[in-house]
Amino acid sequence: MTVTPAQITAAADRIATHVHRTPVMTSHGFSRALQFKFEHTQVTGSFKARGAFNSVLTAAVPEAGIVAASGGNHGAAVAHAARTLGHAAHIFVPEFAGPAKIDVIRQTGADLHIVEGAYADAAAAATAHQAQTGALDIHPYDAPATVAGQGTCFMEWEAQGLAADTLLVAIGGGGLIGGALAWFADRQDAPKIIGVETETTNAMHAALAAGHQTDVDVSGICANALGAKRIGQLPLSLAQSGGLQTVLVTDEAVAAAQKAIWQTLRQLVEPAGAAALAALLSGAYEPSPDERIAVLLCGANPAPIPI
Amino acid sequence: MTVTPAQITAAADRIATHVHRTPVMTSHGFSRALQFKFEHTQVTGSFKARGAFNSVLTAAVPEAGIVAASGGNHGAAVAHAARTLGHAAHIFVPEFAGPAKIDVIRQTGADLHIVEGAYADAAAAATAHQAQTGALDIHPYDAPATVAGQGTCFMEWEAQGLAADTLLVAIGGGGLIGGALAWFADRQDAPKIIGVETETTNAMHAALAAGHQTDVDVSGICANALGAKRIGQLPLSLAQSGGLQTVLVTDEAVAAAQKAIWQTLRQLVEPAGAAALAALLSGAYEPSPDERIAVLLCGANPAPIPI
Repeated sequence: MTVTPAQITAAADRIATHVHRTPVMTSHGFSRALQFKFEHTQVTGSFKARGAFNSVLTAAVPEAGIVAASGGNHGAAVAHAARTLGHAAHIFVPEFAGPAKIDVIRQTGADLHIVEGAYADAAAAATAHQAQTGALDIHPYDAPATVAGQGTCFMEWEAQGLAADTLLVAIGGGGLIGGALAWFADRQDAPKIIGVETETTNAMHAALAAGHQTDVDVSGICANALGAKRIGQLPLSLAQSGGLQTVLVTDEAVAAAQKAIWQTLRQLVEPAGAAALAALLSGAYEPSPDERIAVLLCGANPAPIPI
Repeated sequence: MTVTPAQITAAADRIATHVHRTPVMTSHGFSRALQFKFEHTQVTGSFKARGAFNSVLTAAVPEAGIVAASGGNHGAAVAHAARTLGHAAHIFVPEFAGPAKIDVIRQTGADLHIVEGAYADAAAAATAHQAQTGALDIHPYDAPATVAGQGTCFMEWEAQGLAADTLLVAIGGGGLIGGALAWFADRQDAPKIIGVETETTNAMHAALAAGHQTDVDVSGICANALGAKRIGQLPLSLAQSGGLQTVLVTDEAVAAAQKAIWQTLRQLVEPAGAAALAALLSGAYEPSPDERIAVLLCGANPAPIPI
C-alpha cells in the first residue's frame, strides 16, 4: 500500500472544482523570511477537505451513505464532501471536538452524533453504525485516497512557486505528512520535510523510535486535531522509507506561535495549525542561516468561534 | 495635485522590503466565483502600511520625528513605519479606536496618546503637537505619497493575475480608492471600480452628490476605520474624473459579510474589512451574471483581540 505522485495528480484533477487553491505568502515579519501556505483557508477550515473529496469521489458510495468518526476537522470535511456530492452522512464526534468544529459539521446538514467520552468512544459508535447500516467508513488518514488527497496540497504549493530547502508540517495521524512524503518521494530537488508533533500528541515520533506502530497517550491543546492514538501504517511506511525527521514542541510553544501568527499575519489558526511554526520559533528545529523555510498552516477551527 | 501610475510604480519599489506582498485567492464558496486579495494580512493589519512607508521614505523627517492622528489603522501603520525607519513617532488616537488597534500602536514603541472625545479631538491634539515640536504630520488619505502607496496594492494585484470586470473597494477618507483610481486611470482594460461605504460613514457619497467636499456625521460599526468626516480632496478629484460609482451598505450587511468571510475563508477581518463584500452579498451592488468580481479585504484589527 503506497501513494504515488501520479495518484496525487489524478486526485488534484478530481477535486479541483470542490476545494480552494489556498493562498501562499512570504513574510519577513519573523526572524527570517518564511514562506507560508494558508491551507487553513481550505473549505471547512482545514486540509482535510482534500482527502475527503478524493475519498468520496473514488468510492462506490452505498445507499446508507457515509460515516466518519472524527476529532472534528475530518468529520467536517467528510460531512461537507458527502453533502456536496449528494450523499447521506453520519458523523460521530467526541464532545471535546469543541463548538467550532461541531458547528461546521452541523452546518453541512449531516447527521451529527456527539458521543460522550473519548475519541475511541466516537470511533466505536461509528463502527457500530457502519456494521448496522453498511455505510462507507472514510478513514481520516490511513487510506491511499485520503493521503493522495492531502498530497495535492504540496503539488499545488510547488505550482505556486514554493522554493524551500525545508518544509515544516504538523503531524496528527499522518495523512498530511504522508501526502507530502508521497508527493516529493524520490525527487532530487525535494525539500527536506520536518514533521512536527507536540510532546503529548507524538504518535509518529513514538512509532519511528519503536520501528512500528505503537499506542501513545494524547492530551494538550492540540489533542482534538493532532491527537491520534496510533500513527497510520501508510504514513509510517512513507516516513520510514523517506527518512522523515520529526521534532517535538510544547503546548506553550504552540500557543506562542498561534499568537505570533495573528500578530504578524492576521491569521487566526487553531493550535494544531500553529504547531509547524512553533518548531521554528521555539528552536525545536534550528535551521542553518541560509536555509529557506516553508511552513504549512493547516487548520483554522479554533474555539471559541471568534464571530 | 494628482497621482500617476509612475508614482505608484516608484512607491512599490520604495516600500517593497517593508511590506507584505499580500496573498490572493479565488473562492467558489459564495454564490459565484469571487477573487479576493487578503490585504488585511498587510503589516500592522491593514493596507495603511503601504502609504505610511511611502510617506516616511519620501519625506525629510525632522528631529522631532513624526506625528499622526488616527482612528487606529493609520496610526498603527505610521507608528510602525516610523519606528522601523528609526524615527520618533507620536500617535494620537481617540478612545474609540479600540484595544486591537491601540495595542498594535503600543507594540511599535511609538509614543501613544489616547485622547478623550471624538476623532476631531485627537486630530486637534496632533495638530497642537505638530505646531509645538515641528514634527512631520502624515495625513491618512489626502496626500499624494499616501495615495501612491495605497495604489501599490492594485499594481500588485494585477501582477498576481487579477482578472476582474469589477473591483469592490471600501472607502473611508479615500486613500485606498484613490490609489485604485490612480492606478487604473485612463486604461482601456481597467476594471470598473465600485466604492463601498456604509450608510453612516458616507463621506464620498455625500461629496459626489454635492459636487464638492462636504461634512457628514459618522457612526456605526465601521466608524473607527471608515469614519472620515470629510472625504479627501485628492481622492474626490480622482473619483470625479474617473466617474466613480459608489454604493451604501447597512451595518447589518457588514456584520453578515464579516461572518460569511470567517465561515467561508477563515479570515477574521474587522467590520470595515468586510464592507466591500457586504455590497455584493446584500445586493447593494448587483452584478450581471457573467461579471467577474474582485473584492479587496482591507483591514483585520477587530476588537476584542481574538487571542
